[in-house]
Amino acid sequence: MTDRDLHPVTVLGLGPMGQALAGALLTAGHPTTVWNRTAARADPLVARGARRASTVAEAVRASPLVLACVLDYAAVRAIVEPAAGALAGRALVNLTADTPQRAREMAAWASGQGVDYLDGAIMTPAPTIGGSEALVLYSGPEQVWHTHRDILLSLGGSADWLGADPARAAAHDVALLDVFWTAMSGIAHAFALARAEGITATEIAPYVKGISGLLPDLVDDLAGRIDVGNHTADVSTIASAAATMTHIVEAAEGHGIDTGTLRAANAVVARAVHAGHGDDDFSRLVRVYAEASA
Amino acid sequence: MTDRDLHPVTVLGLGPMGQALAGALLTAGHPTTVWNRTAARADPLVARGARRASTVAEAVRASPLVLACVLDYAAVRAIVEPAAGALAGRALVNLTADTPQRAREMAAWASGQGVDYLDGAIMTPAPTIGGSEALVLYSGPEQVWHTHRDILLSLGGSADWLGADPARAAAHDVALLDVFWTAMSGIAHAFALARAEGITATEIAPYVKGISGLLPDLVDDLAGRIDVGNHTADVSTIASAAATMTHIVEAAEGHGIDTGTLRAANAVVARAVHAGHGDDDFSRLVRVYAEASA
Repeated sequence: MTDRDLHPVTVLGLGPMGQALAGALLTAGHPTTVWNRTAARADPLVARGARRASTVAEAVRASPLVLACVLDYAAVRAIVEPAAGALAGRALVNLTADTPQRAREMAAWASGQGVDYLDGAIMTPAPTIGGSEALVLYSGPEQVWHTHRDILLSLGGSADWLGADPARAAAHDVALLDVFWTAMSGIAHAFALARAEGITATEIAPYVKGISGLLPDLVDDLAGRIDVGNHTADVSTIASAAATMTHIVEAAEGHGIDTGTLRAANAVVARAVHAGHGDDDFSRLVRVYAEASA
Repeated sequence: MTDRDLHPVTVLGLGPMGQALAGALLTAGHPTTVWNRTAARADPLVARGARRASTVAEAVRASPLVLACVLDYAAVRAIVEPAAGALAGRALVNLTADTPQRAREMAAWASGQGVDYLDGAIMTPAPTIGGSEALVLYSGPEQVWHTHRDILLSLGGSADWLGADPARAAAHDVALLDVFWTAMSGIAHAFALARAEGITATEIAPYVKGISGLLPDLVDDLAGRIDVGNHTADVSTIASAAATMTHIVEAAEGHGIDTGTLRAANAVVARAVHAGHGDDDFSRLVRVYAEASA
């Protein structure tokens, strides 16, 4: 890294993720200005060389590139709207998690203010930031991406630009977190069920790792089927999934364990069976979910 | 394999899994007798050297070891109860999937009839049987396991004996399938949500593989926390999961996609937050699930 590669950057919001972002920028040698509503949160970063701004406008004026990482987009807007004048002509990269719809609204607001805008979604936990495992997805105008790509890469790991539609990163984010939190709910529920059967979490953990480790290998087949609309079953059918899910519900109910999530998942499967798709592959459920309002 | 290792074995039920089991036994050189209610299902196995029995009693009398793999335990009992006299003094290994409670009932019935009984749970799909990836879990009397272990290993991969409690294999089965089908529901739902946002399944598939591939790495930490009751959060909290799940529900509802499963999962998370556990680790949900009836 040479001096001319150094790129002043501002980080708004110093929760655990904001601190990780600013920390990675400092490690990469970028002059970093930080702001947080509770100013003391900046202390460890200031000790490492960050410059503390006392207002958002001051923080924004310090750099051509402003990263924001707070609770949600309402919080981003509460912070940046009063500083819109300072932000005009600069780039705002919003690394806050929220819905695709709010990403579109935020991008429209930024455009109206003459602010270059990228929407980002951080897909890995704070401790990964700056390291090789970090993954951050971006979307928004290609030119804004190209201008700031190098400094964003200093957040570590992979930085993928997904296209000009500013909602695309958030759309990936909600879909991927849908996978993650639904699966985590299933894992927690399975540990509860095992425990009720006298099996400790540690005893069943190797098998839980095994079965969850099968999931990535099934994704490409599912995705291919969904995109071409081929739901003819090879091995496993929706009807067999329905039978299995009924067994799980019975076993959990026998122990007084909450079965709301499973029963809701099973209701979708049952709807597919009822519609005559019992012999189809599980991939057909994508259509059943989408037809909820039909 | 020498002649004295050959072990006559009978397979009852020739659905895709029963056919795979009998096929693996034939490949391993064991004299295999097969029976299925629709006799023609046995044709490909008979062509490979299997002996077709015309009645269940005849099939049972052919071997000291009888494997059953049918729809559910009600179907097993409908098949073997009329042949109880023939089965007495032999071993029945029930590889049918059902609930732990029905495994206990089945074991009690077998015990009353003088039948050695092992309950088994096949954790991998039919095409894996006979190969290195197969995983079958067993539970029941240790002596029955030791007597038949070698031939059961010819079904391929791993054969794990989980203990004398006959319900233990079925308890593992329902818990592991809880993980699997809940996660698969989440994956299908995520593809539906991505599609509504104009993202094809193939486009998002690499990221779905990535995020589902993180799950096995989280299992040991979760399991350790659950067994010692330590739910103090390090990085991610239940409250942050609740916020994320709310975003996903909003995004899906905005597209008219069914959100029943997510809302049910979110209700459990919300209950944990409401009970004052918002700052805890997700592992606490195991207790919240278990307290459903409290």
